[in-house]
Amino acid sequence: MNFSKRITTMQQSPIRKLFRYAANAKKQGKKVYHLNIGQPDIETPANFMNAIMNFDRPVLEYSASQGVPELIDGIAQYYRRYNMYFEEDEILITNGGSEAILFSLITIADSGDEIIIPEPFYSNYNTFASAVDVNIVPIVTTAENGFHLPPKEQIEKAITDRTRGILLTHPGNPTGVVYTKDEIQCIAEIAQEHDLFILSDEVYREFVYDGLEYISFGNIPEIQDRVILIDSISKRFSACGARIGAILCKNKKLIEEILKLCQGRLCSATLEQIGAAEIYHNLPEDYFKKVREEYQKRRDIVYEGLKSIPGVICEKPTGSFYVIAKLPVSSAEDFLIWLLRDFELDNETLMLAPAEGFYATEGLGKDEVRIAYILKEEDLRKSMKILKTALEMYPGK
Amino acid sequence: MNFSKRITTMQQSPIRKLFRYAANAKKQGKKVYHLNIGQPDIETPANFMNAIMNFDRPVLEYSASQGVPELIDGIAQYYRRYNMYFEEDEILITNGGSEAILFSLITIADSGDEIIIPEPFYSNYNTFASAVDVNIVPIVTTAENGFHLPPKEQIEKAITDRTRGILLTHPGNPTGVVYTKDEIQCIAEIAQEHDLFILSDEVYREFVYDGLEYISFGNIPEIQDRVILIDSISKRFSACGARIGAILCKNKKLIEEILKLCQGRLCSATLEQIGAAEIYHNLPEDYFKKVREEYQKRRDIVYEGLKSIPGVICEKPTGSFYVIAKLPVSSAEDFLIWLLRDFELDNETLMLAPAEGFYATEGLGKDEVRIAYILKEEDLRKSMKILKTALEMYPGK
Repeated sequence: MNFSKRITTMQQSPIRKLFRYAANAKKQGKKVYHLNIGQPDIETPANFMNAIMNFDRPVLEYSASQGVPELIDGIAQYYRRYNMYFEEDEILITNGGSEAILFSLITIADSGDEIIIPEPFYSNYNTFASAVDVNIVPIVTTAENGFHLPPKEQIEKAITDRTRGILLTHPGNPTGVVYTKDEIQCIAEIAQEHDLFILSDEVYREFVYDGLEYISFGNIPEIQDRVILIDSISKRFSACGARIGAILCKNKKLIEEILKLCQGRLCSATLEQIGAAEIYHNLPEDYFKKVREEYQKRRDIVYEGLKSIPGVICEKPTGSFYVIAKLPVSSAEDFLIWLLRDFELDNETLMLAPAEGFYATEGLGKDEVRIAYILKEEDLRKSMKILKTALEMYPGK
Repeated sequence: MNFSKRITTMQQSPIRKLFRYAANAKKQGKKVYHLNIGQPDIETPANFMNAIMNFDRPVLEYSASQGVPELIDGIAQYYRRYNMYFEEDEILITNGGSEAILFSLITIADSGDEIIIPEPFYSNYNTFASAVDVNIVPIVTTAENGFHLPPKEQIEKAITDRTRGILLTHPGNPTGVVYTKDEIQCIAEIAQEHDLFILSDEVYREFVYDGLEYISFGNIPEIQDRVILIDSISKRFSACGARIGAILCKNKKLIEEILKLCQGRLCSATLEQIGAAEIYHNLPEDYFKKVREEYQKRRDIVYEGLKSIPGVICEKPTGSFYVIAKLPVSSAEDFLIWLLRDFELDNETLMLAPAEGFYATEGLGKDEVRIAYILKEEDLRKSMKILKTALEMYPGK
């Protein structure tokens, strides 16, 4: 009565190990700033709950497997602002971006097939890939280079006859990178030349700073039969607990195949879809501008803080709300444990995510951390002060 | 740029083919009684929505990956009524029973491993199994025998060195069968002797009629390390659109493994969990008794109706809200299309599910239909009259 190999060899969340240290720190009365998780403090738009409260059908019935029509329509409208024109049968609503990725993997890859992902990458991709027996082949990117992509030839070296697609998070989690037009074009060319799908996880697409142009893989006309966009309201509308994601693809045949999986699990949570539909249809004109300004301020505080610490290596991130920093320590995990267990500044300390778990290549990221700038300015300033002081005092350098 | 074999070979819902005929019938002004789907008309308990309306946190944050504590506690309390004692770390909340099954399959079986399922079975099991490359090995049960299990030796013949578990729906969908104590005991013995898991999908556990004793696989002490209970509020509380399911298992190590998958997809829909928790904690004493009485009345109408039709073979079902009937036709699917396209009685007709899609063995079920008795008495009476009249007139016998 053994468990499957795919589950027993599956990594647990790299942050989990730190939880008990954080819990202990709190028990001791320390305040812990949590910059370890992408849970924003921005308020969920109020009309989300209002729409749900207006739900008055006596039976909470199954909704459509592809998603509630009003939500599909809302998402289609949203994308039109960015010159992407999806028809209603080119959009599927999923249980968060998570299910969107899982279903996409199942649809393009069989057991033993491969997906190329630039590392460091969102560690739950490992979970989805292991669950369905798909192998992740990493392409190394580095802090020194701001986690931009390596040259075309280097990416192509990772391609084998089992490669089915390239999965990118754009803007990057955990890296904060926003790919340039040339990088997007390069991936598009590779996909065409080697007949691969592009899975582009663009859940952070609104979080791009410094007035930078954001180019979606959905904006490159010649690859639209092979681009699968992964979407979610979790970060966009600070509604992580709703679990409403989406798959968008101009390849109708692909949508038709994924729909089989959607029908198998009947539907996504109905009430949250109703809430999400309402947000999409009635969003204040300047909503994203305001949120973006808030995050850019936070990004600046964290980046300035990091640059003021001797030995820290980190390029200015331009997207999402994460930054990976290389610290002058031999083991970031040991340092983070020490921060929680042995350190305090005015009875406060910090929790960050060790970056090692975001790499697939053994040995990479050991001296790196991911910082999520999801707290208010003042808390971020204090957090950076704690980090600087702690690194000065840390004995394990 | 091919799609995966697992998706292209995946069956679509067997009912789908009939949808356009039903739509056309309605366009022609016919009333169609939908007995083809397990969507009950019973009202969702009102406190479900009330609890959600009281949600007043400004940010809809991720909830716990294993589920909202109040809901886990509510489910644990519910099971205690039936002498099953689950601790909080033996319960995981999932996106419907669907995800509970998918995650269980991933956890006990690798690609190419096998799961034994008595057929006819819930056709979405095919979807979940194909998605993760697990092979379903059917055991034949028949309408003539009321879909009870074959003798032990016959079940054991299906076991190979790739068999990892036996999956049963109990009470049965699409069969309505409630297994006897001897049958439960037999499966328990087989699982012990051959070291297999038992996945028991008991989402219809409250729907057992005629005062019959219902024995859960959770009630057999000696197999609790290998029993995985699949649960859901969809039918129990007529809340199909909520997508709240659960996995219960006394094998803590197994729960720990499945938790990796739960963490990978972060959490289930938070608001629906809050609603479900409220129902579990504040349910009128006689809730299930009333619902059961209602369904038993409906079952009687359908069963009496079927028995009055010459040539129909069907044992009285004692559980869930489905019955499979063998009709005196050569192709049930053709008959069902004819019902929608060519037949009407006082401008009304009927949609049923062809049972062929519930069988894995080629050729079985071709003359069978599944009837869901989820409508009010009067509608069911009319439906049975339509069926009887139609069978008298049907030219394709």
